[in-house]
Amino acid sequence: MAPQSHNTQTDSFPAPRFGVNYTPSVGWFHHWLDFNIDDVKKDLDSIVEVGADHIRIFALWPLVQPNRTLIRPQALTDIRSVVDAAAERNLDVSVDGLQGHLSSFDFLPSWVSTWHKANLFTDDRVLSGQAEYLTKLAGALDDRPNFLGMSLGNEFSQFASSAHPDVSALSIDEAEHWLRTVLTACETGAPGREHQHSEYDAAWFDNNHSFTPALAARVGSMTTVHSWVFNGTAQKYGGTSEQSARLAEYLIELSRGWAVDPARPVWLQEVGAPAPFIESDQAARFTEEAINHALDCDNLWGVTWWCSHDVSTALADFPSLEYSLGLLDNARSIKPQGQAFARAAATARDSYTRPAPRSTALVLDVGDEATAPNRSVCAPGGEFFNAWMTLAMEGERPAVVLTSQSHDSDILETRGIKTLVLPSEVQRSSTETTVLP
Amino acid sequence: MAPQSHNTQTDSFPAPRFGVNYTPSVGWFHHWLDFNIDDVKKDLDSIVEVGADHIRIFALWPLVQPNRTLIRPQALTDIRSVVDAAAERNLDVSVDGLQGHLSSFDFLPSWVSTWHKANLFTDDRVLSGQAEYLTKLAGALDDRPNFLGMSLGNEFSQFASSAHPDVSALSIDEAEHWLRTVLTACETGAPGREHQHSEYDAAWFDNNHSFTPALAARVGSMTTVHSWVFNGTAQKYGGTSEQSARLAEYLIELSRGWAVDPARPVWLQEVGAPAPFIESDQAARFTEEAINHALDCDNLWGVTWWCSHDVSTALADFPSLEYSLGLLDNARSIKPQGQAFARAAATARDSYTRPAPRSTALVLDVGDEATAPNRSVCAPGGEFFNAWMTLAMEGERPAVVLTSQSHDSDILETRGIKTLVLPSEVQRSSTETTVLP
Repeated sequence: MAPQSHNTQTDSFPAPRFGVNYTPSVGWFHHWLDFNIDDVKKDLDSIVEVGADHIRIFALWPLVQPNRTLIRPQALTDIRSVVDAAAERNLDVSVDGLQGHLSSFDFLPSWVSTWHKANLFTDDRVLSGQAEYLTKLAGALDDRPNFLGMSLGNEFSQFASSAHPDVSALSIDEAEHWLRTVLTACETGAPGREHQHSEYDAAWFDNNHSFTPALAARVGSMTTVHSWVFNGTAQKYGGTSEQSARLAEYLIELSRGWAVDPARPVWLQEVGAPAPFIESDQAARFTEEAINHALDCDNLWGVTWWCSHDVSTALADFPSLEYSLGLLDNARSIKPQGQAFARAAATARDSYTRPAPRSTALVLDVGDEATAPNRSVCAPGGEFFNAWMTLAMEGERPAVVLTSQSHDSDILETRGIKTLVLPSEVQRSSTETTVLP
Repeated sequence: MAPQSHNTQTDSFPAPRFGVNYTPSVGWFHHWLDFNIDDVKKDLDSIVEVGADHIRIFALWPLVQPNRTLIRPQALTDIRSVVDAAAERNLDVSVDGLQGHLSSFDFLPSWVSTWHKANLFTDDRVLSGQAEYLTKLAGALDDRPNFLGMSLGNEFSQFASSAHPDVSALSIDEAEHWLRTVLTACETGAPGREHQHSEYDAAWFDNNHSFTPALAARVGSMTTVHSWVFNGTAQKYGGTSEQSARLAEYLIELSRGWAVDPARPVWLQEVGAPAPFIESDQAARFTEEAINHALDCDNLWGVTWWCSHDVSTALADFPSLEYSLGLLDNARSIKPQGQAFARAAATARDSYTRPAPRSTALVLDVGDEATAPNRSVCAPGGEFFNAWMTLAMEGERPAVVLTSQSHDSDILETRGIKTLVLPSEVQRSSTETTVLP
C-alpha cells in the first residue's frame, strides 16, 4: 500500500497550528490581580520567538465572577487586552473559561464552596451562573478577529473524579447535559467560534469516570487531548521510552477512534516535558520526538505546548515538575525545548506534508460505547495500550477503530483503513521497557 | 447600695468608642478586585455621618496572599490607602486579617484548599504562611497613627466547628497555640497595637468547641464579642424581647466572668439588627436599646455595629438578612437605625457616665475552666442564660463570676461584687417570653 500524501502545496491542507499555554512569567495566573499589560506584552514577545501562532489563556473563575451575579467588567477588559496584545503579534487566542484547576491548584468562587457548596455540574444555581459567566466572557471577545473560541474548562472534569477531595458526583447523562449547556453558553456569546471542552486522562482511562471517551470525541467543535507522561507512561516505561514519546500520538489516535466524524479535528491542547520523568537534558529531544509523532496524525488541528514560561521558584507549593515546564525560563529566555519547539513549528509551516492515512487499525472493544466500562485497557500498561505501542514501534502507524465501526466498510474506506488487528493478535513486544539509545 | 458613678468629667474615664464594620457599598468585599479609593472615600464620608470614630475593615485573605509566598504589595498599598482615607476623616481602623468567613461566604486561598487542603490551624506550612502574611500586613500599617491593630480573624474559629462542611479538627491546646502564634505574628509586624482574636458564639455556648471561653477572655489585648440575636435568642424569645435587646450586654458580662483581669476591656465588635428577627420598623429601637444596655457594662472598649452599608441586592446568594444590616443603605443614605446609632454615639461622647459596678453576680459553673464542658447552659434557652436574663429584667444588673473566683474576696472586691446568686436560686421569670410593649 502506498497511500497518497497530501502536501500543503498541492491541496492546501492546512499545517497544524503551533502554540503555547500561556503561563505569565510574573505572578503566574495570579497576575490577573496585578494586571500589567506591559509584562504580558514582554511575555508574548518571547512567545513569538518560539514560533507560536496562538496561545491558550486562562481566566481565573473566582476573580472574574467572585459573586454569581458579579461578572467584573474590568476582568473582561483585562482579558480583552491580552487578546489584543496577542493580535498585535499575530497570535490567535483560545480562552479557557472555567478555572477550575491549574497545576494542582483549584480555583473556585466562594459561592460554590463550603457553606455554599453545590454540585459543580448539576446544581441549577451553579449551572446558570456558569452559563451566564461563559456567555459574557465569550461575548466580550466576539468582535476580536483573533479570538479562536473557548475551551471548557481546564480539566474541570477532575471535580467529577472520585479521587478529588471534594468530588461532585454525576452521571454520564448529567455530564453530557453540563457539557452541552456550557458549550451552548459560549456559542450564545460568540457564535461560530471553536468552542471545546477539555478533560484529563480519566476520560480515556477511568472505567467509572462520567466524562466518557464518547463525550470527549463527539461533543464540541473538536476533540482536545492532554498528554502527560506522568500518567503512568513514564513510570512504567521510562521518560525516554518510545511509549513516552508516542503518548500524544496514541491519545490523538485513540480519540479519533471514538469520533463519529472521521474528519473531526483533534487538538493536542496540552503536552509537556515534566521533570524528573523527562530529565532536563532530554527535554529538547522529547519535545522534538513527541511533536513529530503527533504530526504523523491526520486532521491534527494543532499542538499547544504546556507551557510558555517556567513558574517562578519564588512561588510556593507547586509540584516540583511545574517549575520547569516552560519553553522559556522565568526570565523569558528560550530553553533547549523552546528551540526544539521553534524548529518543529518552522519546519511544519515551511514544509508540512499531510500524513498518509493509517491503513492498519487496532480494534478497540471496551464494552458499551456510551459508558466505556472497560476503558482502563487503554491506560498505560493496559492490554490495548501495549498492543498499540507494539504496533507503532514496529512501524505500523496504527489507527484505532471501535468494534462497532469495524464492520462499516464506508467508515473504513473513508479513513483509509485496510487492515484490522485485534489486541490479542499483537505479540507483546520485547521493546515494552526498551529505552531509546 | 448606691454605687458611685464615674463621670468622664470627673475622672476622665474614656467613653466607649463607636464604630462600624465597613462593608463597601460598591462590590461588597469584592471591591478589592476593583479597588477605587473614591468609592471608599464616599463610603467613609457617610460613615462619619453616623457618628463613627473607627471602622473595622476586612482584607480578603486569598486576594492578599493568593500563593503562600506571594503577599501582594499592591494589596497592602490598597489597604494602607483605606487606612489613610480613614485618617483624613478622624477614623481609626482595626484590620481583620484572616478572611476567612464573611456573611456566609468563606474565602480561602487555593494553597490551603482541595488538593492542597491542610488543617487551617495546626499544619506547619499553613501556620507559617498565615504568620508571614499577618506580620507583613500588620507591618505595612505599623507607621499609621490611626491603625488600632489586627483582629484575627473574622470568626475564623468556625473552621474548627463540627458544623463546618470542611472542618479542621483541633484540640484546645492546638487552638491556643494557633492563637498565640498568629497574635505574635501581628505583634511582630506592629508592636504595641491592640491585636485580638474574634470568635463566634460557639466559643461561649458549644461544649465541644476548641476555642473556649477561657481562650476568648484571656488571650489577646482584649476580649471581643459578636452578638447576633439569630443565635437562638430571637427565635426563642422574639426579636423585640428584652432578651434580644440584652444579648450583647449578656455576652459582655459573660465574657468578663471568664477574664482573669477584672479591668480587661471588652469590645462589642459585632452587633446588628438582622431582619426578619428584628423587623425593619423595629431596627432603630433595637439599636438604641442594645447599645444602651451594652453601655451599662464597665470597661467596654467600644461598640462596632455590623454593618456600615447594606449589601447591594444586585449581588446574589447572601442569606436574606445580610442585605439590610447597614446603618446606611446601599446608596449611602442614613437609615433609622443609623440615626439611632448616631444619637447614641453623640450622647456617649457628650455625657458618658461610667456605669456603676455590678454588685450582684450570677455564679457560673460549667465544669473544668480550661475545657468548659457544660458551657451550653449559657446558650439562649440554657439555665444560666435564663437566670441571668431574669435577674436583668428584674433590674438587678447582674455580673457573672466563675465558681472558681466566687470565693476570692480580692476579686469580688475589685469588681464591686457584693451578692452572689446561683442560677438555681433564680425564679424562672414569667417574663421569659414577654414581648416589650
